[in-house]
Amino acid sequence: MSIEINAAVAALEAYVPGEQPREPGFVKLNTNESPYPSAPAVVEAVHAAATEAAFNKYPDPASRSLRQTIAESLGVELGQILAGNGSDEVLRLVCHAFLRPGSGDVIGMLDPTYVLYRTLAEMFGSSARTFATVAPDYAIPEAAYDTPVKVFFLANPNPPIGTLYPLEQIERLAADNPARLIVVDEAYVDFSGVGNASISLVERFRNVLVSRTFSKSYSLAGLRVGYIVGRRALIAEMEKIRDSYNLNRVSQAAAEAAFRATEYYADKTRQICEDRAFLTEALRRRGFEVPESRGNFVFARRADAAELYKSLKERKILVRYFSAPNLADGLRITIGTRTEINTLLEGLDALSK
Amino acid sequence: MSIEINAAVAALEAYVPGEQPREPGFVKLNTNESPYPSAPAVVEAVHAAATEAAFNKYPDPASRSLRQTIAESLGVELGQILAGNGSDEVLRLVCHAFLRPGSGDVIGMLDPTYVLYRTLAEMFGSSARTFATVAPDYAIPEAAYDTPVKVFFLANPNPPIGTLYPLEQIERLAADNPARLIVVDEAYVDFSGVGNASISLVERFRNVLVSRTFSKSYSLAGLRVGYIVGRRALIAEMEKIRDSYNLNRVSQAAAEAAFRATEYYADKTRQICEDRAFLTEALRRRGFEVPESRGNFVFARRADAAELYKSLKERKILVRYFSAPNLADGLRITIGTRTEINTLLEGLDALSK
Repeated sequence: MSIEINAAVAALEAYVPGEQPREPGFVKLNTNESPYPSAPAVVEAVHAAATEAAFNKYPDPASRSLRQTIAESLGVELGQILAGNGSDEVLRLVCHAFLRPGSGDVIGMLDPTYVLYRTLAEMFGSSARTFATVAPDYAIPEAAYDTPVKVFFLANPNPPIGTLYPLEQIERLAADNPARLIVVDEAYVDFSGVGNASISLVERFRNVLVSRTFSKSYSLAGLRVGYIVGRRALIAEMEKIRDSYNLNRVSQAAAEAAFRATEYYADKTRQICEDRAFLTEALRRRGFEVPESRGNFVFARRADAAELYKSLKERKILVRYFSAPNLADGLRITIGTRTEINTLLEGLDALSK
Repeated sequence: MSIEINAAVAALEAYVPGEQPREPGFVKLNTNESPYPSAPAVVEAVHAAATEAAFNKYPDPASRSLRQTIAESLGVELGQILAGNGSDEVLRLVCHAFLRPGSGDVIGMLDPTYVLYRTLAEMFGSSARTFATVAPDYAIPEAAYDTPVKVFFLANPNPPIGTLYPLEQIERLAADNPARLIVVDEAYVDFSGVGNASISLVERFRNVLVSRTFSKSYSLAGLRVGYIVGRRALIAEMEKIRDSYNLNRVSQAAAEAAFRATEYYADKTRQICEDRAFLTEALRRRGFEVPESRGNFVFARRADAAELYKSLKERKILVRYFSAPNLADGLRITIGTRTEINTLLEGLDALSK
């Protein structure tokens, strides 16, 4: 006899993260990391945290100092922020807290978007309703406003294309149905130029949550820190089911130092946005169709995308290829350093000869 | 209108971890941390990991190097180990994967034991059936063998008393009902002297999982690493619902270095066991009833426990007081350094004058 499994888990197709090669030497443009190192203050904070006596005691279970720093900057209260082990954790907590088992609750999501949302919903016995967006503008379709899903996940900017949806459209999603929770996943917001505009929605609507991560613009994917902002009543329910000590000492210290290193990261972000324009133009000149992206990546369509992905990988250049039919003609390419971009372009040119 | 909450979450009383004081200067004997610093190799590993270029890339999502190190030492396969962000995470994954929503699945647990098990069960819409253990030997009652719960959590040694249950009793729990999953939570096993005996059960039974943590004997509570060992089929279901990048780069590196620093930690563990005997004897001489403990803590009963807890705290000595009726006459005291133990004893003596 075997142990019976939760049916939702047994049926689940696990999320497969982008490839993290174990050998060195790759130009790694496949998982939207920052190509830039951490700010010196972050490295110093980690070294300072790493004394012999530092690790034997539990961390602050509430990540209070980090959350206070973020709260002050955003002009919200401490109880409006939950800090997580990457934004993956906070998005999971959303599904756990707000999808009611056996009630028929479903999530809404655009297509294409970050496919983890579907996995998270299914993990809790729910399912996803998708709303297709299409070229050239990838607009949110009317059906997305009208359909009564329980939780709508809107990545903004939205990967893998990089579309930025204006605040008015998110407002409309929130206002049209107050029983529908709108989760604005702002993993890439710092590359979009809209700053903290969405935080005002948290103040104005009871049904909006905004998630952020340190993995992209803060060069901290390796230390796993994200957070979510919303009304106290929503955050409090998620706090109940958070693992007590979800954020370790080093990650708390590093994220706080990163958040304070405003100028350093603003400078890197400016560089990435500049290089995004450069890469977009360079790819267009090479026959790719490249929609405008507001993330730290571009989506570049050309008929030979699948083949290019493989050939680039042989040259130790990793980009992201999605086999889904509506994406199979394109590559999502992270904005690397100018040197990495040039290596990519040389690779493309060599393969086109 | 407010957002409707998952009823299990709405009804949940959150787990409250032991107090982590924010001011310095406490003799902290309340959450069973090791009083000893990390091995030098661990601190070196963290410093080595903390280069400027270290954090911008995602960690290995599979924690492969750490898991391989553990697997080789235990003589199991890589696929039999899941590494988590503390054992809290792996215990949560057990409840998520194996409690079937709406099926009436319940967990079994002793009373007293680690109360988090109940919270984790309730978080997934399940509930806990408790089996009381009583002095002097705190034996597993017959009803615990006979009752068909879905998952039985057995902390071994079992806090807050510190009782060690012999392997034959766990075998009987596993053999009596092959549809019941037995989770042996070995957070404190290194202080018990039984080594890796339980791992043999994983090989012999399809329904046994063994969880471990780096938070106690490895002085690594601050970095959050735990793991669980079992048959591939069970581990694979839990892997599906694990956050992809649950373990950050620093924690992976530190835990692996700690696991390899065998002699350093064996030495600290020997010291803790020696000091446990010293403290047990010293408390008995002061009128406490102290059952034999095989953990890095003792449970000391005296009629004035509640009062003592408060008075010790005023003297900046923190021990754990539980208000549950069957524990309200005792204090759980972590085995600190000999200096900390002496400070505690002096405090007790001063309060008895």
